[in-house]
Amino acid sequence: MIKTSKVEKIILGIDPGTNVMGYGLIRIMGNKAEIIMMGVIELSKYESHYLRLGKIFQRVTSIIDEYKPDEMAIEAPFFGKNVQSMLKLGRAQGVAITAAIMRDIPIHEYEPRKIKMAITGNGNAAKEQVAGMLQKMLHIKKEDMDIQLDATDALGAAYCHFIQMGKPETDKKFSSWKDFVNKNSDKVHK
Amino acid sequence: MIKTSKVEKIILGIDPGTNVMGYGLIRIMGNKAEIIMMGVIELSKYESHYLRLGKIFQRVTSIIDEYKPDEMAIEAPFFGKNVQSMLKLGRAQGVAITAAIMRDIPIHEYEPRKIKMAITGNGNAAKEQVAGMLQKMLHIKKEDMDIQLDATDALGAAYCHFIQMGKPETDKKFSSWKDFVNKNSDKVHK
Repeated sequence: MIKTSKVEKIILGIDPGTNVMGYGLIRIMGNKAEIIMMGVIELSKYESHYLRLGKIFQRVTSIIDEYKPDEMAIEAPFFGKNVQSMLKLGRAQGVAITAAIMRDIPIHEYEPRKIKMAITGNGNAAKEQVAGMLQKMLHIKKEDMDIQLDATDALGAAYCHFIQMGKPETDKKFSSWKDFVNKNSDKVHK
Repeated sequence: MIKTSKVEKIILGIDPGTNVMGYGLIRIMGNKAEIIMMGVIELSKYESHYLRLGKIFQRVTSIIDEYKPDEMAIEAPFFGKNVQSMLKLGRAQGVAITAAIMRDIPIHEYEPRKIKMAITGNGNAAKEQVAGMLQKMLHIKKEDMDIQLDATDALGAAYCHFIQMGKPETDKKFSSWKDFVNKNSDKVHK
């Protein structure tokens, strides 16, 4: 039996919101990651809250159908200012999640703090810092960075999942973030 | 041109939750409403939160495809104990809403208090009271009432929407609940 040395995997990152939804796709080849594309859906132009939810479902579904990601990672805050905003956010999250469920794509949720930590080494990093690190690590051209930060947040969720997965081709398992850091000190940006 | 004296409309009521989702369908003929069916989806048997969301989407979609409702009414609390539970509830609501959006079905949301008020005249009525009133008003057989109260809650949302719509065949418009009560004092249960 021939065993390929590199496992290719595509991860879709989603940052669901009710005003803007960000998305980003990365391709994993062995232990390397590269960007496929990223973008945002401007939802604020639709007055109807329902229409916005429909657009999220349609777009996530069409991205899945076009790029056939193996897994989905979503940026999912677990705490919010108030119950009203959490209810709205929950609706947007639920719709993005369901689009993946209907296509049998495993879902992974990461808190914003965890994503920032995985990428910059600082759980309180600014969005611009996260974007800057992603640009370097995923070799994104400068001119392609002229995009809303919600797109890089989505890309960050995908990249965070890649780091969490460990190196696919050796099938390493990490019991915790600490464990991962110990085994991958070269990958962690301080 | 022949004008039919009775307009038929089917309203789907949904009470979305993460443990149990209730649903109920009513048929409106002129100013009369009758039950078509009601039921619950037991979601607690699925361990995965994601699988639960997928089941909500599938079931709501299949009910819509089978019964072709004209409108959907959902019981939607706007306040909750904490942000965690509201996030979960938001996800369940978002999924049920999206299933309707994808089939172009108009959605109406009613707070539990408003539904109770519309049906029993008391915004703080117990679930059992709501169920009892619905049984009478929709002529539901006693043996068919042996069902979880989440199903009657969903039916209540549908009935509440029927009352809010006014009488379809005369196309009455009501500017407010107070206005409706004044014009339909016979319909309001005190």
